[in-house]
Amino acid sequence: MSWLDEVPWNGEGLIAAVAQDAKSGRVLTVAWMNRDALKETAERKQAVYWSRSRKKLWRKGEESGHVQRLVEIRLDCDADAVLLRVEQVGGIACHTGRESCFFRRLDNGRWVTIDPVLKDPAVTYKK
Amino acid sequence: MSWLDEVPWNGEGLIAAVAQDAKSGRVLTVAWMNRDALKETAERKQAVYWSRSRKKLWRKGEESGHVQRLVEIRLDCDADAVLLRVEQVGGIACHTGRESCFFRRLDNGRWVTIDPVLKDPAVTYKK
Repeated sequence: MSWLDEVPWNGEGLIAAVAQDAKSGRVLTVAWMNRDALKETAERKQAVYWSRSRKKLWRKGEESGHVQRLVEIRLDCDADAVLLRVEQVGGIACHTGRESCFFRRLDNGRWVTIDPVLKDPAVTYKK
Repeated sequence: MSWLDEVPWNGEGLIAAVAQDAKSGRVLTVAWMNRDALKETAERKQAVYWSRSRKKLWRKGEESGHVQRLVEIRLDCDADAVLLRVEQVGGIACHTGRESCFFRRLDNGRWVTIDPVLKDPAVTYKK
């Protein structure tokens, strides 16, 4: 029995995946994985997700260069989420050019952007 | 417009919620919230989730005493997940008596339990 068979994939064949910077501890992203994405993540030692909007594998960093190098994969108690501890290349996980996708905080009933843009996405994603 | 209206609840009216220990940085749990859960979390300053199996609000710690006191709530860029930074009362988030639900690590193609049980759940959940 493969370790992949122990993951109770949901009705869409997916599991939630949280990426955390292994050094800073920041939670960087929450995304989804199907079986192929999780398998490839473990094999390549780089985060690969399943894009639900584009319906294809999303090799994180393939355009931006901001790959997430795998440190370890963890599974939670009821096995409905995996945690990737990663080294975030470039120190930028978010397509907005910020360290983390969680750059908005609830302050007095409003979502307030509190983290700076470290690199202009127009530069990162220029063709 | 309420901050709750800015959350793009999924087809089931839910959003993924990641809880992180604000002090240690450990990712503790991944669970789900509906609108009522997120509203109550913000108001009570304690984590409240939606239990998909029991189909009711799950006030984390109501049985175990292991409540998660809210430090801050963050929202990610595409708003499909919230991050709760919390103070984990008792230092135990998992129903197995461990600090974090992510106590299994992938090692050479096997999920290996690597974190200790800090408190016997039979003691925590005794009636």
